[in-house]
Amino acid sequence: MGLGLVAHLVRLGVLSSTSDHASVVSINLFVALLCACIVLGHLLEENRWVNESITALIIGLCTGVVILLTTKGKSSHILVFSEDLFFIYLLPPIIFNAGFQVKKKQFFRNFMTITLFGAVGTMISFFTISFGAISIFGRMNIGTLDVGDFLAIGAIFSATDSVCTLQVLNQDETPLLYSLVFGEGVVNDATSVVLFNALQNFDLNQIDVAVVLKFLGNFCYLFLSSTFLGVFAGLLSAYIIKKLYIGRHSTDREVALMMLMAYLSYMLAELLELSGILTVFFCGIVMSHYTWHNVTESSRVTTKHAFATLSFIAETFLFLYVGMDALDIEKWEFASDSPGKSICISSILLGLVLVGRAAFVFPLSFLSNLTKKTPLEKITWRQQIVIWWAGLMRGAVSIALAYNKFTRSGHTQLHGNAIMITSTITVVLFSTMVFGMMTKPLIQFLLPASSNTVPSEPSSPKSLHSPLLTSMQGSDLENATASIVRPSSLRMLLSKPTHTVHYYWRKFDDALMRPMFGGRGFVPFSPGSPTEHTGR
Amino acid sequence: MGLGLVAHLVRLGVLSSTSDHASVVSINLFVALLCACIVLGHLLEENRWVNESITALIIGLCTGVVILLTTKGKSSHILVFSEDLFFIYLLPPIIFNAGFQVKKKQFFRNFMTITLFGAVGTMISFFTISFGAISIFGRMNIGTLDVGDFLAIGAIFSATDSVCTLQVLNQDETPLLYSLVFGEGVVNDATSVVLFNALQNFDLNQIDVAVVLKFLGNFCYLFLSSTFLGVFAGLLSAYIIKKLYIGRHSTDREVALMMLMAYLSYMLAELLELSGILTVFFCGIVMSHYTWHNVTESSRVTTKHAFATLSFIAETFLFLYVGMDALDIEKWEFASDSPGKSICISSILLGLVLVGRAAFVFPLSFLSNLTKKTPLEKITWRQQIVIWWAGLMRGAVSIALAYNKFTRSGHTQLHGNAIMITSTITVVLFSTMVFGMMTKPLIQFLLPASSNTVPSEPSSPKSLHSPLLTSMQGSDLENATASIVRPSSLRMLLSKPTHTVHYYWRKFDDALMRPMFGGRGFVPFSPGSPTEHTGR
Repeated sequence: MGLGLVAHLVRLGVLSSTSDHASVVSINLFVALLCACIVLGHLLEENRWVNESITALIIGLCTGVVILLTTKGKSSHILVFSEDLFFIYLLPPIIFNAGFQVKKKQFFRNFMTITLFGAVGTMISFFTISFGAISIFGRMNIGTLDVGDFLAIGAIFSATDSVCTLQVLNQDETPLLYSLVFGEGVVNDATSVVLFNALQNFDLNQIDVAVVLKFLGNFCYLFLSSTFLGVFAGLLSAYIIKKLYIGRHSTDREVALMMLMAYLSYMLAELLELSGILTVFFCGIVMSHYTWHNVTESSRVTTKHAFATLSFIAETFLFLYVGMDALDIEKWEFASDSPGKSICISSILLGLVLVGRAAFVFPLSFLSNLTKKTPLEKITWRQQIVIWWAGLMRGAVSIALAYNKFTRSGHTQLHGNAIMITSTITVVLFSTMVFGMMTKPLIQFLLPASSNTVPSEPSSPKSLHSPLLTSMQGSDLENATASIVRPSSLRMLLSKPTHTVHYYWRKFDDALMRPMFGGRGFVPFSPGSPTEHTGR
Repeated sequence: MGLGLVAHLVRLGVLSSTSDHASVVSINLFVALLCACIVLGHLLEENRWVNESITALIIGLCTGVVILLTTKGKSSHILVFSEDLFFIYLLPPIIFNAGFQVKKKQFFRNFMTITLFGAVGTMISFFTISFGAISIFGRMNIGTLDVGDFLAIGAIFSATDSVCTLQVLNQDETPLLYSLVFGEGVVNDATSVVLFNALQNFDLNQIDVAVVLKFLGNFCYLFLSSTFLGVFAGLLSAYIIKKLYIGRHSTDREVALMMLMAYLSYMLAELLELSGILTVFFCGIVMSHYTWHNVTESSRVTTKHAFATLSFIAETFLFLYVGMDALDIEKWEFASDSPGKSICISSILLGLVLVGRAAFVFPLSFLSNLTKKTPLEKITWRQQIVIWWAGLMRGAVSIALAYNKFTRSGHTQLHGNAIMITSTITVVLFSTMVFGMMTKPLIQFLLPASSNTVPSEPSSPKSLHSPLLTSMQGSDLENATASIVRPSSLRMLLSKPTHTVHYYWRKFDDALMRPMFGGRGFVPFSPGSPTEHTGR
């Protein structure tokens, strides 16, 4: 097969296929590598150092080397990293699935902390990295970078990699940390993208209070309207499926409608210049709360696993892609002129990332702990270190933003731009591989109690197995605690704000939302459902 | 929302999104239309005239009109019909799902008849249409078309629309007809594509016996090697999943691996210049026979419905797309100069399609009936009419081939080429809408006995519900008949060849294949499977 492939690459003659030959070759290669990643990832499951994303990254790098050697240094990338591919096709299924499978109770219980970390924290990190870059790089001779470029660097390196976080932390073992770090990651992604776009549009030569206020207003508007759009799309899908009761006819229609509505919400948000990431995340949450309960039994199993599978494929593809793209020779031509300077800049950026994250995790955790009464709810010192560490990885969002900033502007061949691209890739690779590899052992070292559960259930990785089931059991518990708490006054709201909000939300949900949009216990069981008996 | 969209289309200014604005708009439109098609298709379910594909086609046409009016006649197509999109992304899931869900027993029992119809029949149809085109169009003044063009027309209009067939016939109501017409459709697609490509490559100026023999040899090679590749990919996936027992770890890995291996088989076939359609079809059959039984319970439900859903979305998208593309104004400029001639040519082509199909369905049915002993197995006169009628629809394969032939060759602006494109679109639209609409009533009129079952189970469309389950029950029956028949001699093989081959195949399957590749009853039940209890 290998020989045949090479022979094919050589002749490249008249084709029986109607499509472009090069794209057929690259699709073949990518799909074959994806299969290899899945099988290898399975074999390396028990390994404590390597996770699936690192496997994919390494396979991507190796493939890059092989192609580099085969084509004699001409080109290592088969597909050039395309932002469209990333933002339009790969990111939506990953984030949607995260929303769909997240433990809603944990997420909303920590909602304030998550928003604090994701929005305020990212801002702090952005300012730290930006000012660090201005003060350090400003004194170095690295080409023509202006204030806008330095602020963009701040936004680029404030974007944590929520995909990699999913791989490193385990929802079942460390639920609090998972919901904090991952929830923060989603809000952070949105914040970074919003920040980055705002920087592109604002005139940076005249920064005054009005501009800052306008920026903050813009940010709040984006946050609220994106969330609203996601919730609306989720509720609409629930309503349509409940009213038409599509499951009576076809499981496939239900599944198709859920997929398409979720994707539509993302694309609509992009069209309306909102944050698609936030929209599709909340759409996933609403769909798992309402829509998922309105469909047939087999649709539930199918959606749960099909969404997880699509997300899994997209993640693996992403890391493979970043790995292969990293070796693209053109990018490194400038960097190879002055390797010392490249390494220096990458190290400085890594240092800034470390400092920028520390600058908000510890102060904000302290603030968050002030509002909590019981010691159990507080974020311990060790947990803070894990939160700090687990969010250090930089990923595809950073690369996509860096490409957007430093290759699109029309002056690609400039020294400063080229060096920023290579530095971004270096930071992403280093942080994902080195920080990523050290996260699992670090958690086991710092939080041994929770890691004790690992051997008993050796192989439930990435919490994709039964989160919905668990969240259902969780909501039973929730009902129980809600009836025990029984708040009666404003004092209650002040002392336990989250719980009280939650209690009234449940009342509202049961009285108004569920009867209208369906949800657990509010959809009549239909024994005649055509797929009901085949769904087992 | 509509206003905002229009406002957006107007300003088209700086974009918050990082991707191309036009593609975001068109993706939004397409996804929204897909949702509309699904909901409308559900509401029109009970209608005897309209099926899902016709709904999608009409919605596509209406959208085309709206865009035509909005842009004041400038452009009606948002995405230009791209063969790559069709052959690389839309066709594989449809054909794979068809193989995955097909009733294997019915299919293999009628294997000889299907191959006869699909291969020999398509050849007959090809020659009939080609010679008809040469003798009629040769006398008309429709631009510079040579023999190669006429032969290409024969190949283009011999490709039936297997996707539409799936929508019109019902696997549960008319299993024999479904397996014959649909099986023929798959082999026919492959034959047409092979024929078409062979015509492109062969030098048509010197046709002699050697060329014809070479052509036939080429065809057999393609048929066999494509089938082999598909079977190999299916068995490989079964072996990998059985050996590694991936389900122990993750349902998502299994599902991902099945999807990717199937797609890889298609793309490999395209790369090796084989017929991807045949390959992925047989890959689907092998996967449903072996791999499907090796995975966890939840993987089974997921794959069954996820593949059906993907296929369903691809089908709907395809018809929507063809409908929208049909109104592209540029194509009609030539035709509008001489509307009479356009209508005349389209009518002649439709007539040739009718005659070309009649020319092989009735004679080959007669031949096939000669080999059958019992009257029950014979294809009745009424069934022959249904087979003839149900295969009259022309679809996306025809359009894709016509685009390949008449727009790629470099002389797009020629009168003859333009008129061939518009005629192809006319034939496809007319045959799908008119012939498609009349098929359901025709079947109910000609075969009232089988259609009696329709009211009792009013809404199990397109047989996507429980085909695998049914095929499992079918294979129990099969075992029973095999033990009753108990063939003992060569006489048996001659009198009931299919049954005997089937008996020995089962023996081989049970003794060698299933122990190696898994399959029903050959995979140990694992109670500890992590997803086992959530799979219900």
